[in-house]
Amino acid sequence: MTSRKEPASGEDTLIARYFKPLATDPGAFGLDDDAAILKALGDDIVVTTDAIVEGVHFLPDDPPDSIARKALRVNLSDLAAKGAMPAGFVLTLALRSADDAWLTPFARGLGEDATHLSCPLLGGDTVSTPGPLMISITAFGRVPAGKMVHRSGAKPGDRVVVTGTIGDAALGLDILRSGAVATALVHDAAAREMLVGRYRVPQPRNTLASAVRDLANAAMDVSDGLAGDLAKLCAASGVSAVIDAPSIPLSAPAATLLARGTVEIATIVSGGDDYEILCAIPEDSFEAFARAAGLAGVAVTSIGTIIAAASVPSFLDNEGREIALKRLSYSHF
Amino acid sequence: MTSRKEPASGEDTLIARYFKPLATDPGAFGLDDDAAILKALGDDIVVTTDAIVEGVHFLPDDPPDSIARKALRVNLSDLAAKGAMPAGFVLTLALRSADDAWLTPFARGLGEDATHLSCPLLGGDTVSTPGPLMISITAFGRVPAGKMVHRSGAKPGDRVVVTGTIGDAALGLDILRSGAVATALVHDAAAREMLVGRYRVPQPRNTLASAVRDLANAAMDVSDGLAGDLAKLCAASGVSAVIDAPSIPLSAPAATLLARGTVEIATIVSGGDDYEILCAIPEDSFEAFARAAGLAGVAVTSIGTIIAAASVPSFLDNEGREIALKRLSYSHF
Repeated sequence: MTSRKEPASGEDTLIARYFKPLATDPGAFGLDDDAAILKALGDDIVVTTDAIVEGVHFLPDDPPDSIARKALRVNLSDLAAKGAMPAGFVLTLALRSADDAWLTPFARGLGEDATHLSCPLLGGDTVSTPGPLMISITAFGRVPAGKMVHRSGAKPGDRVVVTGTIGDAALGLDILRSGAVATALVHDAAAREMLVGRYRVPQPRNTLASAVRDLANAAMDVSDGLAGDLAKLCAASGVSAVIDAPSIPLSAPAATLLARGTVEIATIVSGGDDYEILCAIPEDSFEAFARAAGLAGVAVTSIGTIIAAASVPSFLDNEGREIALKRLSYSHF
Repeated sequence: MTSRKEPASGEDTLIARYFKPLATDPGAFGLDDDAAILKALGDDIVVTTDAIVEGVHFLPDDPPDSIARKALRVNLSDLAAKGAMPAGFVLTLALRSADDAWLTPFARGLGEDATHLSCPLLGGDTVSTPGPLMISITAFGRVPAGKMVHRSGAKPGDRVVVTGTIGDAALGLDILRSGAVATALVHDAAAREMLVGRYRVPQPRNTLASAVRDLANAAMDVSDGLAGDLAKLCAASGVSAVIDAPSIPLSAPAATLLARGTVEIATIVSGGDDYEILCAIPEDSFEAFARAAGLAGVAVTSIGTIIAAASVPSFLDNEGREIALKRLSYSHF
């Protein structure tokens, strides 16, 4: 018997070495085919896609494992906000070179998250690029037919609710860019690390997905800044909102920086990368939602009320005066 | 009533202007939500993802509409080879700037193909990049449960069959790079245009999907070169193949270039970007397959036979001698 002369290319070797071990779902066919199979199991398939680009969504010297985690988690955050349970994802990876020192931790971080967040790798494409690294992920979730939660659907009187804390990631990015926050926290390594961690590794709220699905009139994840994303949710729902800015949940470092005047509330509510859920919960469901959130281990905070109006949402300070926002959110163009 | 101060960013405007008109499927929600819904309708969902990068898969001065068509068609080619009917796609677009003169024809080409190929836009992500343009598409198809055609499954005695013609795209790329083919065809504008067109705008064989599903033991699309892709199909199937190189279907310009010695058969069979279907058809199904292909308007050619062996496939010349192949296919790394 002649020995097989392997047809494996560098690309095949790369996929086999780093990504095949992650493709544990039977529908991935061990990445040995041109396509994967996703079973709907009678549910609707929810599809979301988000890409992250070096120098734009992550920094060249961010740890590879956190880049992988962020790429997957920003997509899982969308699934959570839509009330969907993760079902799997496909990955497009544009690399300058097949660098083992980068790919090993990248694949490890991706694999750990895929396992812990129950979202297996189904397939992908690896291409070379002379430019910045780019990771594009399309993630799939399942919801019972017709039960996806939309941006539209918020009704006057609903509470405006957010998970976790707002603004930390924007402050973390400022630290990585050696901005005013880095200076203000120069003697507080723990605070710096926490804020940078919030930028680098979002915490998608997938454990809250079923409560969002059962109780929210409308939901989306906060990725481009609370103010802008709330404006989008309100526009889609044909409503407006009044937000009590002092109610917006802040981490201890963010609260301190705000109290000291290092940052303004406008920066907090227009910074991106929060990856928290923003939703409209009917008043009489809020208690049940808060209870479900407690069981899911997710903090939720009511920050205002949906109103019947066509204006952009107002953010009021502790004296009831409207806060001027120069920009609502991050935009790529 | 106050007028609504639009929260739209440049990114939102870009999506609304260029891509919302393409999102005609009800599951796309007019691109106004964070996710799309894909209905499985009792079928298996086939998922495939392929990215194209400026300078790697297309050239900076390729027409924007053909770049869009190629990005979608390389994915549709995978669906066709898996026996799946197109169901929709999501798009990630990494752009240096929101350039109207580029985006208008890009979106027009994409929309025309999405309509003609029955594969609607379901969602996407638009991000900025300082580097090369990149278009990543994840496409979805439907097959009856368990009926996806795999790379594995080819059996000794099966005919090795390809659609269309092989090698044209690699010759077209050589023309765009002012190589030997450009010189040889300097007085034949029609041939140059045909070959360049084959590089820029693949012809996915979606009309043949049901015949592939019903009759092929194994199939994949030829994207990285016939020799390498056949080696992959054989490896996945645990078989080998003997190919009669003179039977490989060539376009008239490719045949002329080969006869003149401008290119070698090795270049033809290891060049990428063919986007034809390569499949293994049982001998007693070949006639039915050829008939179905005729009805579908797709040329199919039997080029060899699957054999029980572990070696890489052999390509034999018209005297039965094995042709030496320096490389089997294109690899990114």
